[in-house]
Amino acid sequence: MTRVAILGATGYTALELIKILLRHPEVEIVAVTSRQEGQPPIAMIHPSLTGRLDLRLEDLSPAEVAARAECVFSCLPHGASASVIGPLLEAGCRVIDFSADYRLNSADAYAEWYGQKHVDPDRLGKVPYGLPELFREQIGLANLVANPGCYPTSAILPLAPLLKAGLIQPGSIIVDSKSGVSGAGRTPKLTTHYPECNESVSAYNVGRHRHTPEIEQVLGTVAGQAVEVVFTPHLIPMDRGILTTTYSQPVGNVTEDQLMQTLRDFYADEPFVRVVDHLPGTKDSMNTNYCDITARVVRGRVLTISCLDNLVKGASGAAVQNFNLMFGYAETTGLI
Amino acid sequence: MTRVAILGATGYTALELIKILLRHPEVEIVAVTSRQEGQPPIAMIHPSLTGRLDLRLEDLSPAEVAARAECVFSCLPHGASASVIGPLLEAGCRVIDFSADYRLNSADAYAEWYGQKHVDPDRLGKVPYGLPELFREQIGLANLVANPGCYPTSAILPLAPLLKAGLIQPGSIIVDSKSGVSGAGRTPKLTTHYPECNESVSAYNVGRHRHTPEIEQVLGTVAGQAVEVVFTPHLIPMDRGILTTTYSQPVGNVTEDQLMQTLRDFYADEPFVRVVDHLPGTKDSMNTNYCDITARVVRGRVLTISCLDNLVKGASGAAVQNFNLMFGYAETTGLI
Amino acid sequence: MTRVAILGATGYTALELIKILLRHPEVEIVAVTSRQEGQPPIAMIHPSLTGRLDLRLEDLSPAEVAARAECVFSCLPHGASASVIGPLLEAGCRVIDFSADYRLNSADAYAEWYGQKHVDPDRLGKVPYGLPELFREQIGLANLVANPGCYPTSAILPLAPLLKAGLIQPGSIIVDSKSGVSGAGRTPKLTTHYPECNESVSAYNVGRHRHTPEIEQVLGTVAGQAVEVVFTPHLIPMDRGILTTTYSQPVGNVTEDQLMQTLRDFYADEPFVRVVDHLPGTKDSMNTNYCDITARVVRGRVLTISCLDNLVKGASGAAVQNFNLMFGYAETTGLI
Amino acid sequence: MTRVAILGATGYTALELIKILLRHPEVEIVAVTSRQEGQPPIAMIHPSLTGRLDLRLEDLSPAEVAARAECVFSCLPHGASASVIGPLLEAGCRVIDFSADYRLNSADAYAEWYGQKHVDPDRLGKVPYGLPELFREQIGLANLVANPGCYPTSAILPLAPLLKAGLIQPGSIIVDSKSGVSGAGRTPKLTTHYPECNESVSAYNVGRHRHTPEIEQVLGTVAGQAVEVVFTPHLIPMDRGILTTTYSQPVGNVTEDQLMQTLRDFYADEPFVRVVDHLPGTKDSMNTNYCDITARVVRGRVLTISCLDNLVKGASGAAVQNFNLMFGYAETTGLI
Repeated sequence: MTRVAILGATGYTALELIKILLRHPEVEIVAVTSRQEGQPPIAMIHPSLTGRLDLRLEDLSPAEVAARAECVFSCLPHGASASVIGPLLEAGCRVIDFSADYRLNSADAYAEWYGQKHVDPDRLGKVPYGLPELFREQIGLANLVANPGCYPTSAILPLAPLLKAGLIQPGSIIVDSKSGVSGAGRTPKLTTHYPECNESVSAYNVGRHRHTPEIEQVLGTVAGQAVEVVFTPHLIPMDRGILTTTYSQPVGNVTEDQLMQTLRDFYADEPFVRVVDHLPGTKDSMNTNYCDITARVVRGRVLTISCLDNLVKGASGAAVQNFNLMFGYAETTGLI
Repeated sequence: MTRVAILGATGYTALELIKILLRHPEVEIVAVTSRQEGQPPIAMIHPSLTGRLDLRLEDLSPAEVAARAECVFSCLPHGASASVIGPLLEAGCRVIDFSADYRLNSADAYAEWYGQKHVDPDRLGKVPYGLPELFREQIGLANLVANPGCYPTSAILPLAPLLKAGLIQPGSIIVDSKSGVSGAGRTPKLTTHYPECNESVSAYNVGRHRHTPEIEQVLGTVAGQAVEVVFTPHLIPMDRGILTTTYSQPVGNVTEDQLMQTLRDFYADEPFVRVVDHLPGTKDSMNTNYCDITARVVRGRVLTISCLDNLVKGASGAAVQNFNLMFGYAETTGLI
Repeated sequence: MTRVAILGATGYTALELIKILLRHPEVEIVAVTSRQEGQPPIAMIHPSLTGRLDLRLEDLSPAEVAARAECVFSCLPHGASASVIGPLLEAGCRVIDFSADYRLNSADAYAEWYGQKHVDPDRLGKVPYGLPELFREQIGLANLVANPGCYPTSAILPLAPLLKAGLIQPGSIIVDSKSGVSGAGRTPKLTTHYPECNESVSAYNVGRHRHTPEIEQVLGTVAGQAVEVVFTPHLIPMDRGILTTTYSQPVGNVTEDQLMQTLRDFYADEPFVRVVDHLPGTKDSMNTNYCDITARVVRGRVLTISCLDNLVKGASGAAVQNFNLMFGYAETTGLI
Repeated sequence: MTRVAILGATGYTALELIKILLRHPEVEIVAVTSRQEGQPPIAMIHPSLTGRLDLRLEDLSPAEVAARAECVFSCLPHGASASVIGPLLEAGCRVIDFSADYRLNSADAYAEWYGQKHVDPDRLGKVPYGLPELFREQIGLANLVANPGCYPTSAILPLAPLLKAGLIQPGSIIVDSKSGVSGAGRTPKLTTHYPECNESVSAYNVGRHRHTPEIEQVLGTVAGQAVEVVFTPHLIPMDRGILTTTYSQPVGNVTEDQLMQTLRDFYADEPFVRVVDHLPGTKDSMNTNYCDITARVVRGRVLTISCLDNLVKGASGAAVQNFNLMFGYAETTGLI
């Protein structure tokens, strides 16, 4: 049994995390934090938790958190997260960070893409990227894990095996992603106001979405050379789910069978990656920790199509998968 | 040709009004106002107007508006609307008010339901309620018309003929309404944040929605006696449309044929009320100025089911219908 | 560990049931049946089950089913279900029937509402109605349980305590329900074709929905006298969820506190009914086995508002709750 | 005034066409045809037309149609359309064909992509492609116009000016499109069954969608050389709208300013193409005949993003635009 705390518990990833953890037989949630005034019961913020989690939101210091919890899931925004993680680690907690603070290896890249100086640059480059399918061993040993972004997971899982196998060119990759609205968070904005985004699809942050360097860095590590990605996210009128369609140039001639076999071999033993023959829809993986992947060759170009639930495999499910590895539980505990 | 101004042009009813007026052959839009800083082109706020209306949002005084326009559509919030309408009328404008400021006849009722003192109480009770199907003659002669609320129109149109004909009891009426989200306006709120209200239905303002006294007052006028209504609005995950189901006790025995015939007779010459045999869906009236109505008898109880587009017949279409009556244009101009 | 079979496994309730049972530690799914040709893997019909359930759809006789399974969940349509349940019971299986075949006590009522003669009339009236909150004891002892309809559960749970306590009049009840589209099943029809029902709300089967006699019968049993219900179902553009708003006349004066206290007392020990002060939305209970209930008094009329997930508490979750009672597992197993 | 007939009037494009034509001051609809039995009033099929079009669906021969109408809009499926168009033309009608029958210049290409022999191959290559922005002059003179596919219009309009200006390479083009569900037609299918496609996004017909050769042919004509396109359509949970994101290699160095200026110059006088700086959403063009276009350069790659309403500019609005050109009405009549 492990005592866990959740920082920044008013958002959607925290809510999803709580729902998963409530089914995890080896977890006790001992604190949920927020700067919300008045310490309301968490079920007042998330009515779906009524009768399921009897905790109040508290505004706790890292020391207070560490006094209660062995493991901390930080759902704080970037910047805020890095500023508390050092103290938490020093106080003996192990931490899974949902923010982007420890995903990039370089403080310069962080400053460029996130528009602020990193407050804890010394740890950068030493924190495993929390994608068990690529970095399982490091995750198991780590005290701090950088939980991946939702788009990156949807792009890295289909592309990594093909890059590793040398089947596609690393300089040519287009990533066209379609995401549900929960990915934009729980703070009301005009762009996510129902009558604005319902019945509409649009691209956003074209050429400057912060997940771009994350995708490139991880794929570059896998490929052993620089990878360049054109990444275009689109907002889709649905709650959850990401479908990512990638386009790349093959190295020489590549057949669909080769692509599919490479993917199947790579993920043969993975509990949460399903390589499928059909064209998957996001609903197939909704509310699950699965990522579904297929590949096609069209007019000599390599296509991959992958989908996952941005709140589960794209966030909180992946976090629990990492937690299980870090604390020695069966990797699928609470996730099936 | 009539020169019109639109006050409070950043909201959804104003946008819908503009789209209708752009098709109206006898209208020139001469001003669109807002307190928005920097006087942005209206198409910057409403991208769908790009290339269609080349005006900037201006922060104009009533005198400045009156210097340009013969008719003013006020889409300002209640309170704000009443505070400019006096000056506009005195400066010679004729006004159609989308707010609730002149709908109730009593300043006390206004204070009770809207939580503030009315700033222009002397006009209350003298302003026609802008439902042409009931008050066509007064509307045509008026300088100020109180454009009806969306829910009230959906409830009054089916019930008024039955009350007038003495077929249902005035003290027994239940109004259960289902509305799309655009009715909540364009300001982002948690309740209308996409991931909150999508894939969900809920009741709100039960027993205290401000449209209650409006429905009761107008139905009371029609019935010639006090009418009491239990009104329950529900938020439905769709952009636009209201479906209203009412339940009432008949006076004596009433058949479906009697109900339908009464409705058909009452609306025989109305261009925008369709009495239908089938059960209408809101999509049938979407983007139109129609209200569709049917009636049933179930276990001795009278049911009516009606639907309309809350932004058209429930707001901006009705306003243009009123405008046509006030300025002597064919009532359906711009609306078919 | 109990071996279970699922009959009619291509529909949505069967899919939901499988997902719940896959998390149930005491269940082994040994057969999924369908008349589907070619015995395809069930994951070909339901891609979300890929990698999760490795069974083929089979067209099995009751004897073949009984040779494998101790418990049978029948998701067959009404009529079809009754025709196999007798043989299954006689072969020693215990059965939970999702169809309406054993919900009504009277073969005449069945014939009237379902338009066909009942094939197994002798069992009618002896089969417990599978609502544990009202009939827990009988369910635990039964070999056959009639799993409730989704609308009835949403209406009975809020109304039963109030009727039992004599707080509302049994002859006056209006039930206005709003349901997501999955309630209409998996067979494509024009009314559930996406561009028809999306962005629209409509009433259907007004005054003649088959859940009416079911609601009346169960509430009548609870009240100890005849109960009459005007039931109006509405189709809402969302996947799942039912919100039911009821209106009834109180007996004498009733306060909101009385209503709420009566509900709280009645459900004090129930794991899956949450009596809440706020107005619940269907999303609060989405993907859970909870039914959320609140009550209000408006202008002397009693209102209840309740919601649940039609596929979980309204169907498959309730079925597993019944299963747990029948087979001696903790009632919440697999459902939290 | 022109008398028009609509063949195959039960579908969504026909419904949209009727709604547009009802606002066209120079059109009289004289016949709506279907094989539907019993000649029901068209408002029985499309309830939104109640009180707006008092015609029955008839099963008419080409000769009967030609006896009434000067212009025929054929909304028949491919194959069926070509089999009646010859007789209609010979009887003196002018025809706008919504099907793909006359879009491709080659009977071989038609046979390859549509899986059947063309029944009227002699006309192929002589029928103008009904995109006024590219072929206005030919359309005006034609007796038969091939109304474009919805996806092709969304892809051709942004790409044609760039290809014509030699700014992008013709062999490198990726077209990733996102479409609402009405594009799939009005016949219920499992893929467009609400609970299947709602809250989900998926790719379909990858590498083999029939609009591929159409896009390539028209762009090839514009470019003066062969153009190759990788086309991936995606189904989005919304009623209407297409957003198309294209990716192509520039010829040499190209700036965003160059791209935007090229687009602006090309469409300077076009009433229905809006070149915009912001990233457009499909809702901006919903229910309008506009196509909104913008362009970006990301990591040296050229992106265009365009959107339109698949039922208006992607089908029926374009058809009326063609009609106006053919019959000498102002091109925007009925469309603003």
